[in-house]
Amino acid sequence: MKSYREMSREELLDLKEELETRYQEVQAQNLHLDMSRGKPSAEQLDISMGMMDVLHSGVDLKDSEGVDCRNYGVLDGVKEAKELLGQMSEVSPDKMIIYGNSSLNVMYDTVARAMTHGIMGHAPWCKQEQVKFLCPVPGYDRHFAITEYFGIEMINVPMTPEGPDMDLVEKLVSSDPAIKGIWCVPKYSNPQGITYSDETVRRFANLKPAAEDFRIFWDNAYCVHHLYDDHQDFLLEILDECEKAGNPDIVYKFCSTSKISFPGSGVACIATSPNNLKDIKKQLTIQTIGHDKVNQLRHVRFFKDIDGIHEHMRKHAAIMRPKFEAVLNTLERELSGLEIGSWIRPRGGYFISFDAMEGCAKAIVAKCKEAGVVMTGAGATYPYGKDPMDSNIRIAPSFPTKEELAVATDLFVLCVKLASVEKLLEV
Amino acid sequence: MKSYREMSREELLDLKEELETRYQEVQAQNLHLDMSRGKPSAEQLDISMGMMDVLHSGVDLKDSEGVDCRNYGVLDGVKEAKELLGQMSEVSPDKMIIYGNSSLNVMYDTVARAMTHGIMGHAPWCKQEQVKFLCPVPGYDRHFAITEYFGIEMINVPMTPEGPDMDLVEKLVSSDPAIKGIWCVPKYSNPQGITYSDETVRRFANLKPAAEDFRIFWDNAYCVHHLYDDHQDFLLEILDECEKAGNPDIVYKFCSTSKISFPGSGVACIATSPNNLKDIKKQLTIQTIGHDKVNQLRHVRFFKDIDGIHEHMRKHAAIMRPKFEAVLNTLERELSGLEIGSWIRPRGGYFISFDAMEGCAKAIVAKCKEAGVVMTGAGATYPYGKDPMDSNIRIAPSFPTKEELAVATDLFVLCVKLASVEKLLEV
Repeated sequence: MKSYREMSREELLDLKEELETRYQEVQAQNLHLDMSRGKPSAEQLDISMGMMDVLHSGVDLKDSEGVDCRNYGVLDGVKEAKELLGQMSEVSPDKMIIYGNSSLNVMYDTVARAMTHGIMGHAPWCKQEQVKFLCPVPGYDRHFAITEYFGIEMINVPMTPEGPDMDLVEKLVSSDPAIKGIWCVPKYSNPQGITYSDETVRRFANLKPAAEDFRIFWDNAYCVHHLYDDHQDFLLEILDECEKAGNPDIVYKFCSTSKISFPGSGVACIATSPNNLKDIKKQLTIQTIGHDKVNQLRHVRFFKDIDGIHEHMRKHAAIMRPKFEAVLNTLERELSGLEIGSWIRPRGGYFISFDAMEGCAKAIVAKCKEAGVVMTGAGATYPYGKDPMDSNIRIAPSFPTKEELAVATDLFVLCVKLASVEKLLEV
Repeated sequence: MKSYREMSREELLDLKEELETRYQEVQAQNLHLDMSRGKPSAEQLDISMGMMDVLHSGVDLKDSEGVDCRNYGVLDGVKEAKELLGQMSEVSPDKMIIYGNSSLNVMYDTVARAMTHGIMGHAPWCKQEQVKFLCPVPGYDRHFAITEYFGIEMINVPMTPEGPDMDLVEKLVSSDPAIKGIWCVPKYSNPQGITYSDETVRRFANLKPAAEDFRIFWDNAYCVHHLYDDHQDFLLEILDECEKAGNPDIVYKFCSTSKISFPGSGVACIATSPNNLKDIKKQLTIQTIGHDKVNQLRHVRFFKDIDGIHEHMRKHAAIMRPKFEAVLNTLERELSGLEIGSWIRPRGGYFISFDAMEGCAKAIVAKCKEAGVVMTGAGATYPYGKDPMDSNIRIAPSFPTKEELAVATDLFVLCVKLASVEKLLEV
């Protein structure tokens, strides 16, 4: 296909007219589709329905240590839940705290605690003149929302195919004591689906922060969310690398079953060093008597072990894979060679990241919306919702059916073309 | 029985010897009993086992509005959960937010949010020079632990048979703008089992605080926890009274099913004014995508409505009542007329509050412990763990079996007698 950039003004005007006609046709269909959030589809939720059967009134609700999971107690999670989520996090159970249903909530609480009480004896962040976070971009909007809510200044760090630009991370972290953290989705990143390389993980583990209370917020949300059985990304285990580097306390690792069992009714956890665990538990014991142990037990009885989780994730992949491929094939078929956008073909996770021509993302998302397809807001993948290039768009293919997705993606590429032509005609 | 206070030194010495012999006999039994926490017994948990059956793989997990409770979404709770907990809280569903498993966590979060972000546009508490809370005493140790954790200065306010000393509350709240809150357990209070009188509730509703961001933390933990069917306390609905008083925003009301279904796997909520709800939701939407809706649905399907809850609570009462009566009867039989302690006979809740002779509580609890019976630590019912009279002891009769309770209570009264005799001999 001929690159749009090589077209004459006349060719572009003809193309614009043709695209507009097609756009009006789609608008007439009154679509109501949603590709905005990383929500599993109903079909995916159905594969976890067996979880509703493992506990019933004929079953003992004691854990392997004899604890009655129905009652109060056990601040940091029942033994077998620590083992299961420990296996998933590739961390020993004694480095785990099991929480309630939301790892986002755990991350929020971690920042909130640092604000009011500081980290491991250091001054509370709210008493420090300035607190800054590094934000690899594009990234996850809900991460950025937490740091924005607490008035933490966010600094963009560009992503590379290997993870965040580590030259920049090292330079900033080692020179500025106001930098207290960095948001990372190290595996099948949100939104790009990039997995940090071994070198990136090792450089993270070997950071020499100017601030002693600097922490890496390692949100391993997609640790087992592969799309392919034979074609998976591998991520070095960060806690292990940090220990080797003599930096054992530098990382908080978060994980949950939200997109494994039922989002919103799963089990979340934190994995970190003994020093950090001790620090966290001082607060946790004030905040709660304990999290939902019955739900922890329900997950363990359903999944049994890490093999059970992997088996379950293959069922998710079987549903997700065709959706990802449908979107990616359409992008390739319709946009390859046009020089109006680029994207990455991920091997796992929940998203496809699309980079439009500079200055086109908002227009594309607006056009999609006007024709009845909701995308994640343009800019959402950047702190403060401000994409300096107005280029990145996050595509979430999981929730719509395959048929809906085909219609929505066709509209998306049409809007990309139309917005790009309009942009090129502006010059 | 002859009052210990009227005994001669010789009589006391004889008595001491006799009591010591009996104490040594009990010590020889090597008891391991626990009356320290308000934990339901296994027998009580068994009556909720039906809750494990209402959801299974053959059941639709959509709420009444068609929301798939398995997926993300619905920040403030599913419709029917708001209705059920609204009925329990005696508040309209549109004034409710349904949370996760722990009302303690909701209270913690409420204080934490006020610390970092302030209340309804007022300066964050962490930016204010001084923040104080009023603490009716004796009270609930976990409340006091939250305010202590955040460095909030706690001021004791004595309880009366009608609730907190309202003359003092009014005087302090109206004169000191640093006073930002008060902890209340208004019905079957922890530990005394006192229910606030209508006048007390109305005086709370009509408070004229010096601080605009003053809030009443109304922990209605025992709203449906009656011991008797025909002999119940009634509490005026505070939100309603606050509205009438032109003070709609002054109260946060907390509630949960923790001691109704399974503690730790229940559903908690807050009920408050539209202004407060709006303020809270600004934070909640950053903190989480939503709480466990499947568990909300489970509770609604099991209890159905407030009648279902009341029916269920009668089953709890049938188990709790004989335990309360066993303790109270032993206290009366063994201690009446001795002038070495007083107690209240509650109509509901989870505790019996015992006031020993001044300066004896620690000694009594220590003696119980040395003979194998763990009581709530002396002082725990006061801020900072400091009971100025060293007098109050919280008795939690729910967890032990009836047989264990009989043994433990016999030991308790023995320790009360022994510690009192020792005290009287000191003079």
